[in-house]
Amino acid sequence: MYYIGVDVGGTNIATGIMTKEGKLLAKTSVKTLGFRAPEEITKDIYKTIETVMRETEIPLPEIGGIGLGIPGCFDNTTGQVIETNNMNLSDFNLFAELKKYIDKPMRMANDANCAALGETVYGAAKGYSDVIMTTIGTGIGGGFVCNGKVYDGFNGAAMEVGHMCIEREGKPCNCGRCGCWEQYASATALVNLTKEIMAQEPDSAMHSYVAQNGGEVNGRTVFDCAKKGDAAANKVVDTFVDALATGLTDLINLFQPAVIIVGGGVSNEGAYLLDKVQKAAQAHSYASTKIAGAEFRKAALGNDAGIIGAGMLLAE
Amino acid sequence: MYYIGVDVGGTNIATGIMTKEGKLLAKTSVKTLGFRAPEEITKDIYKTIETVMRETEIPLPEIGGIGLGIPGCFDNTTGQVIETNNMNLSDFNLFAELKKYIDKPMRMANDANCAALGETVYGAAKGYSDVIMTTIGTGIGGGFVCNGKVYDGFNGAAMEVGHMCIEREGKPCNCGRCGCWEQYASATALVNLTKEIMAQEPDSAMHSYVAQNGGEVNGRTVFDCAKKGDAAANKVVDTFVDALATGLTDLINLFQPAVIIVGGGVSNEGAYLLDKVQKAAQAHSYASTKIAGAEFRKAALGNDAGIIGAGMLLAE
Repeated sequence: MYYIGVDVGGTNIATGIMTKEGKLLAKTSVKTLGFRAPEEITKDIYKTIETVMRETEIPLPEIGGIGLGIPGCFDNTTGQVIETNNMNLSDFNLFAELKKYIDKPMRMANDANCAALGETVYGAAKGYSDVIMTTIGTGIGGGFVCNGKVYDGFNGAAMEVGHMCIEREGKPCNCGRCGCWEQYASATALVNLTKEIMAQEPDSAMHSYVAQNGGEVNGRTVFDCAKKGDAAANKVVDTFVDALATGLTDLINLFQPAVIIVGGGVSNEGAYLLDKVQKAAQAHSYASTKIAGAEFRKAALGNDAGIIGAGMLLAE
Repeated sequence: MYYIGVDVGGTNIATGIMTKEGKLLAKTSVKTLGFRAPEEITKDIYKTIETVMRETEIPLPEIGGIGLGIPGCFDNTTGQVIETNNMNLSDFNLFAELKKYIDKPMRMANDANCAALGETVYGAAKGYSDVIMTTIGTGIGGGFVCNGKVYDGFNGAAMEVGHMCIEREGKPCNCGRCGCWEQYASATALVNLTKEIMAQEPDSAMHSYVAQNGGEVNGRTVFDCAKKGDAAANKVVDTFVDALATGLTDLINLFQPAVIIVGGGVSNEGAYLLDKVQKAAQAHSYASTKIAGAEFRKAALGNDAGIIGAGMLLAE
């Protein structure tokens, strides 16, 4: 049997066909154009499925199922999408509409949970069964693979790790709370903090670095300058590591996963960042010192993780 | 088949025998005297097992297994207890020692996770499969039943919910972190806060209440006085509800459980407290407003939860 995974993202619909072990054989994508009628989005989802089936010449009877990664909440028993962010699929029965084109077992999961499952089956945490993934981007996303399966909660909306409160009277968050983790440890928070410290430190090497690199502060600014010894940049790195480690320590204290996968642009700093974060998180976590703590690993599959994880929803 | 559950606590070893549905048929307990040799503790564990078997006249072949709730970390594959708090069972193979007396399948789980499983199988969350339990006592304990099974993490130490950080530069905790949830929302924290506000509010009715009720502030002081309209007591209740809801909102955002069970002495305030906390937690949680939020329920089984959950480890 082969499996189809569809990552229904805000920007692209990315679809792949894979073996039952999670090996991608073909993939394709189209723009989501999320504010179209949901029937049109569904038609394009089917077109991507048709494309990867045609390309690999895998016939319909050999397709075991179709998994869909959805950025929102849903009900797998009915196929109803309950609510999606930035996309016109809310209050829509995606299974029923897609079955007009292709009649196969279908299952949805949160997109971040799909990425965690993809990394567990075929990526950075291959061979493990209890895995947490955090994606450090504009916000902070999270996924949890429990005993080899995606954990979604009763409504598909679990693992909003970016919205753990780490500072009760802290910065206001879009979600309505104050002090959410992502206000301190997302890539957005890192860029804001970098700009703040640069304004305070006119002699920092970050100013000339930014001028020579397109004029815009980004998530790499501070790491590149810290590695060259700039004191202000190192101050930003220390503050950011502390914030990142605070939420990760919470996740260790709650989940005690064997592996924590860190993805998103910031994870490209690799061992330079992850070693610091792992050291800080392990130092503060509650577990016995007699047992090894969670191992931190950089995500390995990039955008393919969501596709592979979606496909593996039916194979698991 | 019948199952034996043993709650190996700091004070008592409490043991029960039950049906495969979790119905307790007999129970007994002895003092743990935790700093004895581990062989002596194990011998007493066996004696309690013998007692409940004799009392119910259930013969050895009808015993399906023995589950043990342990306040620490362990390795179920070997039977080794790795570390326990306040008890001399660390670095000791409990399965091997107990098998000298009785040769049955054995499994350990964290004591708080056993309580969560007990409440799920036979108590406040009967019929649900994804359940979080928090016990508000001296500290805050937690358990997680995922898809009907205890979630322990890779080392048996998961769900230390009391050690989520809700205030990064907050009160120091015994665990080494600052701002842990239990520093603000445990029964201990409630009593401390009550005393603090009483010192600031000499006219509060709490002073005469305490004088008339044994002279000591306890977890009920503030609730009894708040219900009678004392302003200072209501201030304490509001602050405590806010702190309790902060951690519970985090747990909702992470787990999206169908049911959150609240146990421990504070839960005896029942609907008066839980309704306030549920309202505050749901208002701040991330889930869609289109779907019902986690339902808060008072723990139903008291100390039996840990015994039943331990027994159900083998029956699940």
